[in-house]
Amino acid sequence: MQDTITTAMLNAAHAEAQRMGVKVCISILDAAAWPVAFLRMEGTILGAIDVANKKARTAALFQMDSADFAKIGHPNGAAYTLENTNGGMASFGGGLVLKAADGTVMGAIGVSGASTEQDIAIAQIAANVLKA
Amino acid sequence: MQDTITTAMLNAAHAEAQRMGVKVCISILDAAAWPVAFLRMEGTILGAIDVANKKARTAALFQMDSADFAKIGHPNGAAYTLENTNGGMASFGGGLVLKAADGTVMGAIGVSGASTEQDIAIAQIAANVLKA
Amino acid sequence: MQDTITTAMLNAAHAEAQRMGVKVCISILDAAAWPVAFLRMEGTILGAIDVANKKARTAALFQMDSADFAKIGHPNGAAYTLENTNGGMASFGGGLVLKAADGTVMGAIGVSGASTEQDIAIAQIAANVLKA
Amino acid sequence: MQDTITTAMLNAAHAEAQRMGVKVCISILDAAAWPVAFLRMEGTILGAIDVANKKARTAALFQMDSADFAKIGHPNGAAYTLENTNGGMASFGGGLVLKAADGTVMGAIGVSGASTEQDIAIAQIAANVLKA
Repeated sequence: MQDTITTAMLNAAHAEAQRMGVKVCISILDAAAWPVAFLRMEGTILGAIDVANKKARTAALFQMDSADFAKIGHPNGAAYTLENTNGGMASFGGGLVLKAADGTVMGAIGVSGASTEQDIAIAQIAANVLKA
Repeated sequence: MQDTITTAMLNAAHAEAQRMGVKVCISILDAAAWPVAFLRMEGTILGAIDVANKKARTAALFQMDSADFAKIGHPNGAAYTLENTNGGMASFGGGLVLKAADGTVMGAIGVSGASTEQDIAIAQIAANVLKA
Repeated sequence: MQDTITTAMLNAAHAEAQRMGVKVCISILDAAAWPVAFLRMEGTILGAIDVANKKARTAALFQMDSADFAKIGHPNGAAYTLENTNGGMASFGGGLVLKAADGTVMGAIGVSGASTEQDIAIAQIAANVLKA
Repeated sequence: MQDTITTAMLNAAHAEAQRMGVKVCISILDAAAWPVAFLRMEGTILGAIDVANKKARTAALFQMDSADFAKIGHPNGAAYTLENTNGGMASFGGGLVLKAADGTVMGAIGVSGASTEQDIAIAQIAANVLKA
């Protein structure tokens, strides 16, 4: 990802969290799941750092949003224990696949620190930057 | 935390466990989850060392008691797999957030080795030192 | 650290690397060595991710620049094997302690991807933001 | 080790560090290298936590003070790479074997945070408790 796009996504997520009045960690990975950018807003609980990273990692490794992954990698899902592979996946929302306007997978983003619904919404704002 | 407060908490938990006639590990972390103090009473099962540390770590990283964390980080909770983040969290009681009298988070304490109810009670005695 | 300061440091380091024509990773940690911000410029070698993090971690944990740490944590230093503690420290330059204008330790920054001299210079530009 | 002895050693080391005006971590392990007690004095650099633990672990695993271990586990020693075994040993002083008055190995203590000479002196004060 070009630096200008990375920075634009990070700033968009940050601004949306500020608008909502919540504190989150934002983690952006490339398509090979290597770190590209990260921001922890001041006052975010420390546990959210690893959670944001794992949400993004889940989306990158399985090319599906972590909320969808949760339907299969779960004690009640079709592939229970899948969530324990790859160093531990996140079986709840807040991790999104990042796709370019033409559908190319560019990487993934994970947001954690607010409610799961808010985390998803913030991640979506950043993902939309790629489709502009 | 001042050394005198740390020592007072460790001693208070130790005395309470002796009063109950149980053997426990007591782990005190600062607000950033770094170790401050630890004591394993003679005869405590070795498995309790890591458990006490993880209970305290859970409380520090998510700023909630580990018994409350168990409601969300659990196969039946809203964020199943959250318990697998951050090196493994403790989804059962015995980890408490340590707060000063004015509500400031000072760190966390974890107790393990006795029953969960006893572990919680011992940790609470230590936590009360900060409110005196 | 306030979000505005974090972002200003990240942008300052990024701009300096662009000016030099080099590709680097920039890692900013708080005083307890927890991640605050990270950026990998497009095209930076993957090995630089962990190196930038470890440089910053060295500076945070020992409250000294990694170039100074190298003098003691080294086969020829007074505390050989110190470099193998804490998950592995960085015994070469590019990690700087971040201090406010009044000397308070705010955290640490690590830069990796260019020459050691360039990494140090880029980190210094970011560190200067705190003294403005 | 009886709890009263453990506590006496921890307190003796703590008091000596205060007398010297230094900040240290004190780590006490049993003869099987499992944690017994730990104290980080307020203001001690975070890197000293793992260093104190590793010094004590070195003394426990090889039943020799870490300053003596340094003579063999070193690039110039007779068993270079020995220092990389067992998760990483400490090839510098501050880890002492704890022995009862009759010579029985009780465990080990590691001190870190001050100069190596001071760390050794503080650990010795604690070790002397067992010989009283």
